[in-house]
Amino acid sequence: MHSYRFDSPSLDGLRLHDEPMPVPQRGELLLRVHAVSLNYRDLALINGRILKPAMANGIPVSDASAEVVEVGEDVDDFRPGDRVVSLFHPRWFGGRKVAERAIGSYGYNRDGWLTAFKVVSREAVVRLPDGLSHEQGATLPCAAVTAWNSVNGQLPVGPGQTVLTLGTGGVSVFALQYAKAMGARVIATTSCADKAQRLRALGADEVINYRDTPDWGLMVRELTGGQGVDRVVEVGGPATLKQSLRAVAFHGEVVLVGFLGETGAPLDYFDLMGAGASLRSTNVGDRSLLEACVQATAQGQIAPVIDQVFGFAEARAAFEHLRSGTHFGKVVIRVAG
Amino acid sequence: MHSYRFDSPSLDGLRLHDEPMPVPQRGELLLRVHAVSLNYRDLALINGRILKPAMANGIPVSDASAEVVEVGEDVDDFRPGDRVVSLFHPRWFGGRKVAERAIGSYGYNRDGWLTAFKVVSREAVVRLPDGLSHEQGATLPCAAVTAWNSVNGQLPVGPGQTVLTLGTGGVSVFALQYAKAMGARVIATTSCADKAQRLRALGADEVINYRDTPDWGLMVRELTGGQGVDRVVEVGGPATLKQSLRAVAFHGEVVLVGFLGETGAPLDYFDLMGAGASLRSTNVGDRSLLEACVQATAQGQIAPVIDQVFGFAEARAAFEHLRSGTHFGKVVIRVAG
Amino acid sequence: MHSYRFDSPSLDGLRLHDEPMPVPQRGELLLRVHAVSLNYRDLALINGRILKPAMANGIPVSDASAEVVEVGEDVDDFRPGDRVVSLFHPRWFGGRKVAERAIGSYGYNRDGWLTAFKVVSREAVVRLPDGLSHEQGATLPCAAVTAWNSVNGQLPVGPGQTVLTLGTGGVSVFALQYAKAMGARVIATTSCADKAQRLRALGADEVINYRDTPDWGLMVRELTGGQGVDRVVEVGGPATLKQSLRAVAFHGEVVLVGFLGETGAPLDYFDLMGAGASLRSTNVGDRSLLEACVQATAQGQIAPVIDQVFGFAEARAAFEHLRSGTHFGKVVIRVAG
Amino acid sequence: MHSYRFDSPSLDGLRLHDEPMPVPQRGELLLRVHAVSLNYRDLALINGRILKPAMANGIPVSDASAEVVEVGEDVDDFRPGDRVVSLFHPRWFGGRKVAERAIGSYGYNRDGWLTAFKVVSREAVVRLPDGLSHEQGATLPCAAVTAWNSVNGQLPVGPGQTVLTLGTGGVSVFALQYAKAMGARVIATTSCADKAQRLRALGADEVINYRDTPDWGLMVRELTGGQGVDRVVEVGGPATLKQSLRAVAFHGEVVLVGFLGETGAPLDYFDLMGAGASLRSTNVGDRSLLEACVQATAQGQIAPVIDQVFGFAEARAAFEHLRSGTHFGKVVIRVAG
Repeated sequence: MHSYRFDSPSLDGLRLHDEPMPVPQRGELLLRVHAVSLNYRDLALINGRILKPAMANGIPVSDASAEVVEVGEDVDDFRPGDRVVSLFHPRWFGGRKVAERAIGSYGYNRDGWLTAFKVVSREAVVRLPDGLSHEQGATLPCAAVTAWNSVNGQLPVGPGQTVLTLGTGGVSVFALQYAKAMGARVIATTSCADKAQRLRALGADEVINYRDTPDWGLMVRELTGGQGVDRVVEVGGPATLKQSLRAVAFHGEVVLVGFLGETGAPLDYFDLMGAGASLRSTNVGDRSLLEACVQATAQGQIAPVIDQVFGFAEARAAFEHLRSGTHFGKVVIRVAG
Repeated sequence: MHSYRFDSPSLDGLRLHDEPMPVPQRGELLLRVHAVSLNYRDLALINGRILKPAMANGIPVSDASAEVVEVGEDVDDFRPGDRVVSLFHPRWFGGRKVAERAIGSYGYNRDGWLTAFKVVSREAVVRLPDGLSHEQGATLPCAAVTAWNSVNGQLPVGPGQTVLTLGTGGVSVFALQYAKAMGARVIATTSCADKAQRLRALGADEVINYRDTPDWGLMVRELTGGQGVDRVVEVGGPATLKQSLRAVAFHGEVVLVGFLGETGAPLDYFDLMGAGASLRSTNVGDRSLLEACVQATAQGQIAPVIDQVFGFAEARAAFEHLRSGTHFGKVVIRVAG
Repeated sequence: MHSYRFDSPSLDGLRLHDEPMPVPQRGELLLRVHAVSLNYRDLALINGRILKPAMANGIPVSDASAEVVEVGEDVDDFRPGDRVVSLFHPRWFGGRKVAERAIGSYGYNRDGWLTAFKVVSREAVVRLPDGLSHEQGATLPCAAVTAWNSVNGQLPVGPGQTVLTLGTGGVSVFALQYAKAMGARVIATTSCADKAQRLRALGADEVINYRDTPDWGLMVRELTGGQGVDRVVEVGGPATLKQSLRAVAFHGEVVLVGFLGETGAPLDYFDLMGAGASLRSTNVGDRSLLEACVQATAQGQIAPVIDQVFGFAEARAAFEHLRSGTHFGKVVIRVAG
Repeated sequence: MHSYRFDSPSLDGLRLHDEPMPVPQRGELLLRVHAVSLNYRDLALINGRILKPAMANGIPVSDASAEVVEVGEDVDDFRPGDRVVSLFHPRWFGGRKVAERAIGSYGYNRDGWLTAFKVVSREAVVRLPDGLSHEQGATLPCAAVTAWNSVNGQLPVGPGQTVLTLGTGGVSVFALQYAKAMGARVIATTSCADKAQRLRALGADEVINYRDTPDWGLMVRELTGGQGVDRVVEVGGPATLKQSLRAVAFHGEVVLVGFLGETGAPLDYFDLMGAGASLRSTNVGDRSLLEACVQATAQGQIAPVIDQVFGFAEARAAFEHLRSGTHFGKVVIRVAG
């Protein structure tokens, strides 16, 4: 069976390897991987500046949808043919937030999912409901859970509240969809008229072109009657946080879900204090969040937005497409047939 | 100016009185009442079996929408012409739940709103947004806040969750509307095909005829794949709680919001323990809940369902209509022109 | 190696069996059991009226403290010599509450811990801190976690709040200790002067003799200035709930943690509604709760109260002692050396 | 009767004025002020760099303890002789956090409490329990509520958790006392051996001299086994936040409660993201928080630490003492008798 590994830390190093079929032990599942999706994190792990991988020559990619092929001893809750999606943190099931370096994750300190077959503990997957395809399922473990975490958290957003999303990456598009499904008003940003159109089609109540309006934080505040938004899903990082703090309400929350760039102006203490808002860092989410997210997506008939599906042989092209930043939603690789 | 008072504790005792115009002091507002709405509670206070009024000859009705006519000294946040709705508990602003006998409420231990003019503290009202009429505003203080409390509480319902509502009274119809706006699936009950049709039109995913299906709790459980609903908005009381405990999921919550009848089978401890669910009693809600509810209703463009609007002269007919139990949604009395 | 099994469903059926040593597979641990503790649940499973075991001839007992003897493949977070305590629900790690019949537990639908050696997944144990002995550790999985859950839950009790505990069983004594450590005032009940003395020594601010004061709910209310307690840890069941509802504040919570008897007066809907309080059923707790409870117990230097320690050969006597109801705190069986 | 006013924005401008006795209207109370306490905020309002007062020539000071002298019409819940403490935000009763500029506060946009008599709404005070003196009561409205908010918030600290407090100002000392009362471990910082001694006497488990250990964030982390603290009560501001982010656990929370200096190194986005912790800004607290804080202080027998009590004639000296930064706990001015 075949797996991709990074023989060296660059896209040039991404190579196919022929490897022995793994065998499930007690409490484990042998899975045929059907589809995986890529995240900006997969690129950040290659350049290794902010996020440094804890292994060499590993199999990349954290998110997968798969089919149970064989079950180990004592497994009575899964059987061959069952469809599942993978946990981002294979051993974070609940309880308080843990650092990635402490808990581990696929593609970071253990082999990931860009492989034809894989054995994992039955605790490391959740069922994929009938209404979702494997391509859709593969988009959920990182981006959808992160978005779900952002608009839920200690207090879910809802009618009467406004959410701000930034750009058109996987997390932002999911956050827009979940926030609308939960009854909130959504203000989104993008730099491109075409994408603005698509954001509106997905339900965005307002779309701001951040190129045309560099002080978009202030415009967001105006669009909320001077009050600011209740929640910001901050995916940008150092380049956008100052504006996000302008956009957020005194009682609001800025959820730090990652970074798409590595540079930007530093922050002043009084920017934070004056904004009034809370800042909450996320680390994707635990097992119970994936379960809730999968159930909400299926029952709420929320269709994950897939930008493009690449074949298993085109894995490198998929990474390059993600790196181009032209995508809207998720980039998927079809692994099996 | 004219007020209705119960000269004796029955509908026959409901009489118009000519009274002096009240005068606002510091921090107070003189309001012209535009509309009020009735609640089952107004009938329960007349018969006085479960809920005993703490005053005689009082002005009834707890819910009003009004217009500021004059402001007292030091009031800089309201001015004549402003539109407001009343708090159910005029002095419960936040903090922990308090008993009605401790905190007081209109029509129970102080004069209510079935009157042309009234002076209250500026803390006892919240603004009515432009998108809502006075008739709509008058439906919010008790029924909408109770419904909002039910589907929010410590954890708001949302996509992936199912809510059960009982019948077609004001609270139940609002609960259906809010739960749908928040992305939840809703199962509703009624005994009448016409009303079932209207419930579906408002978004109910499933409607059960509780006359045809006396063991409707079991049917609710089947409609949720055997798991039960996440939330029950229990308005029925002793006659329905046993079925509600059958309908609710082990992790779910039954919100006790009141009673529409006074008799029913007693409960067994193991009914409660076995159901697993939590039971939460509500007492309408505090000021912050009214603010959130009003904002959610306006921004979410949720149109309160008004069964019928009566004129000020027809107040008694409005009470009788409510008593007939044939209404769907709220019964309103138009007070001012 | 030796295990106790119920060859028939009565204490007479409790017999020692010689069994093969189990072997750990990937991700598993071979454990030498050092101590176990008994719970009322172990007796209820024998009579099988309310709680019916889902297996015959099983090894009883849900709570253990043990030592790692050997680790399976890929286990890098435990090594021989590590000290651990067991999860009550071996696969409930976090997320929403699940029914025991759905999730399973030791002694109910799988073999328990009254055995010399046992293999479990590394996910099914948490570390025992140095400050706690194996006898102490064995008291935590069910009773301490249940007590911890009761005084925490969605809102931990603390200074300015009052907690009511009932009797001197394991859960109640732990609840008293945790509530005092968290700064709350505690009112406890007992029928015996000696035990009252010991409750006071553990920090109880008030002790009520429920034999002398059958309407103890009312006395609790008086001891709180008429307001009632913020939290009731209701271990009694049908025989005590009516009084608990009298004792609890309108904003308070009655936590249903089990039952020590099976009969009592039925409940009226208006008892619940009038009390105002919420009722919350618990099912022990998930893995994250055990982690928090173990850490709190160790760091807070809370010494589990052990009534008596029996030898492995005296297992039947330990069950009989529990059945006598004369204990104060936990009944422990020392399994290894 | 006499009031102090700032005739010009400096301590030199603090002058006594003879003013007419105020008269209570409906729902209001005439209060004789017994004691007030000072906060760093009172100094910041004078220099007006970060916090700019919204009025000229105002009466300063936000915190008071007072006695009811006369009640206005319709006031049935207070009577002459009742003892009360003041709300920091006289109209923030509950609901979401609001900015000071939006809600207003004493000494900022309305006259404060450094006056012999004052009329306020009955909603703007809460009862002072018998166990607390007026001097003690006067320390609660700002510093104690802020500390209480810090260690409570969405999730109260408790046994098994560690709290970090900075220095020996009013908020930090209250935070230490509340955290200990709630069962948490406390690490405190100071630059002075004498104060270290007093912190330990109040229950601090560890005290770090931040002069001797400039990288005290790292030392805090070591004292928690590398994990970091669960909560930081960050009173320092720009000068300390970098170290606080080093000291806090990945799942922890840094509560921003103010600033004692105005300069310090800017923050990097990855400092925040890498720390994992949440940042929560507080704005003292609402009425329900004052109620809970007063009750916890009284029932928990927590004695507010008063550094020094000045006479009404020595008001300026009290301000100067606060400015010296040598105090430990609260600086109080005795106004009456």
